[in-house]
Amino acid sequence: MKKLINKPEDVVTEALQGIAAAHPDLVRVHTNPNFLVRADAPVQGKAALVSGGGSGHEPMHGGFVGMGMLDAACPGEVFTSPTPDQMLEATKAVNGGAGVVHIVKNYTGDVMNFDMAAEMARGEGIEVESVLVDDDVAVQDSLYTAGRRGVGTTVLMEKIAGAAAEERRALKEVAEIARHVNSNGRSMGMALTSCTVPAAGKPTFEIGDDEMEIGIGIHGEPGRQRMKLKPVHEIVEMMAVAVVEDIPYAKGDEVLAFVNGMGGTPLIELYVVYNEVNKFLEGRGVKITRNLIGSYITSLEMAGFSITLLKLDDELTKLWDAPVKTPALRWGV
Amino acid sequence: MKKLINKPEDVVTEALQGIAAAHPDLVRVHTNPNFLVRADAPVQGKAALVSGGGSGHEPMHGGFVGMGMLDAACPGEVFTSPTPDQMLEATKAVNGGAGVVHIVKNYTGDVMNFDMAAEMARGEGIEVESVLVDDDVAVQDSLYTAGRRGVGTTVLMEKIAGAAAEERRALKEVAEIARHVNSNGRSMGMALTSCTVPAAGKPTFEIGDDEMEIGIGIHGEPGRQRMKLKPVHEIVEMMAVAVVEDIPYAKGDEVLAFVNGMGGTPLIELYVVYNEVNKFLEGRGVKITRNLIGSYITSLEMAGFSITLLKLDDELTKLWDAPVKTPALRWGV
Repeated sequence: MKKLINKPEDVVTEALQGIAAAHPDLVRVHTNPNFLVRADAPVQGKAALVSGGGSGHEPMHGGFVGMGMLDAACPGEVFTSPTPDQMLEATKAVNGGAGVVHIVKNYTGDVMNFDMAAEMARGEGIEVESVLVDDDVAVQDSLYTAGRRGVGTTVLMEKIAGAAAEERRALKEVAEIARHVNSNGRSMGMALTSCTVPAAGKPTFEIGDDEMEIGIGIHGEPGRQRMKLKPVHEIVEMMAVAVVEDIPYAKGDEVLAFVNGMGGTPLIELYVVYNEVNKFLEGRGVKITRNLIGSYITSLEMAGFSITLLKLDDELTKLWDAPVKTPALRWGV
Repeated sequence: MKKLINKPEDVVTEALQGIAAAHPDLVRVHTNPNFLVRADAPVQGKAALVSGGGSGHEPMHGGFVGMGMLDAACPGEVFTSPTPDQMLEATKAVNGGAGVVHIVKNYTGDVMNFDMAAEMARGEGIEVESVLVDDDVAVQDSLYTAGRRGVGTTVLMEKIAGAAAEERRALKEVAEIARHVNSNGRSMGMALTSCTVPAAGKPTFEIGDDEMEIGIGIHGEPGRQRMKLKPVHEIVEMMAVAVVEDIPYAKGDEVLAFVNGMGGTPLIELYVVYNEVNKFLEGRGVKITRNLIGSYITSLEMAGFSITLLKLDDELTKLWDAPVKTPALRWGV
């Protein structure tokens, strides 16, 4: 196992220490239980957004804490759900009296633990709305999931719902906007290589030198098909067809195209992918009016990418464009 | 060779097409010869900044074209210098009457070609200042270099000199600030894995499953030492000592710490590295007042990192903080 770490059991803690040291202007890090909150939390009168999940997907979620996006993130161990007490303490820390939205990726452990945390928070008088992300069109059920997995749309939801909360919209309205993002967002991923969980010390799965896996999950869960490597225009075609045909698109529709690296993919390849996605959508008469290109929801050092398409309307576009100031996404300020 | 590409010979062109499609608000892409200019180029009365070099180091340099940073970037083939005609055409395209600064990383091909381009541009009446970056403390001469290689400080120079140019400072003053950045910046890199140039189809060098290379260059040039993998605190100590002792530092000095991923390194590991760099500098009484953490000057899919330390003064800090709006770096706007 080749990793830039000290001991496998200290990776998450030491990365959090690094974030705390690097971004004191943006976030505060709480340990035992582990969570990050935006530096000015709690923001009085604002609906707060809390997300979380296993570590190993950085910058998600900790890199998205700050003005205009998340109020708190709860990092679990690598590829392991955070615990209900992390989520509860984060929820209490960021509640500014206007309630808290939990953004939950659809994995069994995350769903169960966020449900428990929400119940406990409600028992302490905090209004909580839970929003599920289940945007991965690759497979219906998966290794850690009943239903579809939650993947790239999570990033877009955190940005857009965060902007709505920043406008001081009411809790239920922020949750509705988040659910609207989930309805309009679809994703699919692929991998060229596996990845190694530090505590495991060996690759999550084996894959041949000439093979790729189409429809992979962000924890290396099996996808739709293992096949020989193909030129990227064929790979994009396979994935984009599945993504774009999962919800109705009409000619002239506007879309946010998110080309995401899985952690070990160089940026030059992501731009080659984006070029193919752009050509594919042009061919269907769908217009990319916003985009995001980079490694934002990753699987440790896995090489590969995912495509997320979010069908836009004026409100989603406006909220996407709103200022954001987090360690990983920043514009307008 | 596992890459998200169509044909090896089309990678650079197709990545440029991807950039053109993704960022028309920020950059315009010119082909044959290949270069990118900021969308509003030429900016009248502003000293213009042009850089360039082999591709495979993305987002450097094309991702740094835009307001507050570069006016143009010239991408060569992967790990191959761009040609003088690219540099000349880019120089002519961005000259707004106040002259052009060439930011040149110290590699023999780049230096020779930028020298020729500068001569030709002067022949056409354009004032050109050339600034060399040679910040890599690892080795004195290298595979493609007489003297030290130009690495991470390039990114910081492009940001800081770009801010000075944006303030409409005179050409020679912008060049002086860039040289001051080079004087104050030092770097060193390391690799866990090799990388594969698409046209070569096989790894640039071989490295054992339990080995790392300390002092590696950004094209896989040999470093100081091949050794067994160590805990990251030992790796950082080795590298940071070499970087920080190359120029005089006194207790209380302020520094910009840039922890850079080589392309295949997950962000969680870069934060673990940053945590070690921070502890190391605290131990020496040097204060990190600014930082940059991410993959900004890369070597295709190589896993590894580099540390760049830039000793700050008030002016450098102010210029670093100035607004920037490029595909890869953005704040303040």
